[in-house]
Amino acid sequence: MTRKENRISEKTIERLSVYRRYLKDLNKKGKDRVYSHELSQIVSGTAAQVRRDLMEVGCNGCSSKGYEISLLIKEISKVLDCSKKENIALIGVGNLGRALLGYFSGARDNYDIVAAFDNDPAKYNRIICGRRCYSMEQLPNMIDELKISTAILAVPAESAEKEAQNLIDKGIKAILNFAPRHITTGSGVFIETLDMTSALEKAIYFSRKNT
Amino acid sequence: MTRKENRISEKTIERLSVYRRYLKDLNKKGKDRVYSHELSQIVSGTAAQVRRDLMEVGCNGCSSKGYEISLLIKEISKVLDCSKKENIALIGVGNLGRALLGYFSGARDNYDIVAAFDNDPAKYNRIICGRRCYSMEQLPNMIDELKISTAILAVPAESAEKEAQNLIDKGIKAILNFAPRHITTGSGVFIETLDMTSALEKAIYFSRKNT
Repeated sequence: MTRKENRISEKTIERLSVYRRYLKDLNKKGKDRVYSHELSQIVSGTAAQVRRDLMEVGCNGCSSKGYEISLLIKEISKVLDCSKKENIALIGVGNLGRALLGYFSGARDNYDIVAAFDNDPAKYNRIICGRRCYSMEQLPNMIDELKISTAILAVPAESAEKEAQNLIDKGIKAILNFAPRHITTGSGVFIETLDMTSALEKAIYFSRKNT
Repeated sequence: MTRKENRISEKTIERLSVYRRYLKDLNKKGKDRVYSHELSQIVSGTAAQVRRDLMEVGCNGCSSKGYEISLLIKEISKVLDCSKKENIALIGVGNLGRALLGYFSGARDNYDIVAAFDNDPAKYNRIICGRRCYSMEQLPNMIDELKISTAILAVPAESAEKEAQNLIDKGIKAILNFAPRHITTGSGVFIETLDMTSALEKAIYFSRKNT
């Protein structure tokens, strides 16, 4: 499986995550089989694309009976999850950071935000939304101690690049960036930016075009 | 300008929004000119792409002196903004919805979340994060009264499709969806999904690959 995994693209990984969540929902509802065209609807794609994605995790469906849902969940999880829970750091405990702590906590099987970091001394050592907040100076120690390799960045735009570079210097391998700034680094570190402001401005633009 | 505007793609609109925010930052710092290659870095694109994007809003730079920042901001704003402030509805006032109210409030020139809606009677008529919360039954009236054409959807995955259809039926023209579910509608309504869970699972996957 290792060689295959190495070839899986970013877009496919994203869709596998979406499929899995949907498959878990179907499973809860007592459904045991699914067709590729059903899955294609939830990612606005084609059935052929779904079948290619699922072949990447070693699953071939049957044109008359579709795919076995529990097997799909198992095989997708083999690719997306690792045997241990992934420890994640949250950087920036403002309004958005607190919301993300709330949103990503709870019943998550395969990852957990284990520590939050901020530059504001008033937040140090406080438990905020269920997680302890540390100073940025404590970051290197905590990364080692808790074996953190992924960080969520929820700092203001103007400090995003500096904080991202700091995370990379300290050994973080992937960053989910909520700061409204695209971050570029020369390193091989994976950075995904979710730019909520641009997304909203885009929606507003097209709402006017649709009126 | 109208014919030109109609051709602008989703991706270009998104980048124009990112450029503008960055240009405003530069302006505050006292800078008055910018080169396309500087702008290309903040969107992980090429200088040629930036120049094409800016031609879409009628701006041509000068290869030796770059672009005049204040002119770029003005021309991008002509495309992205309309003369009146855009009124936006937030659907779903849970943890994430509250955070979005906080995040999108404050000093926004061109849009404002004017009302929040939820199915929980305990929230009706309460002011939550500075905005009044209404019942879903009040949605059609409020859309008319406040002339709302864009909505932010922050409801659980299982009700996302139903609520989106409800919004569309009531005349909403664009939806920014935070529910972890891709929404498909047969209508011409614009729907942008920001799937935070998939984005995080993707970051985790690539953090392991980078280790």
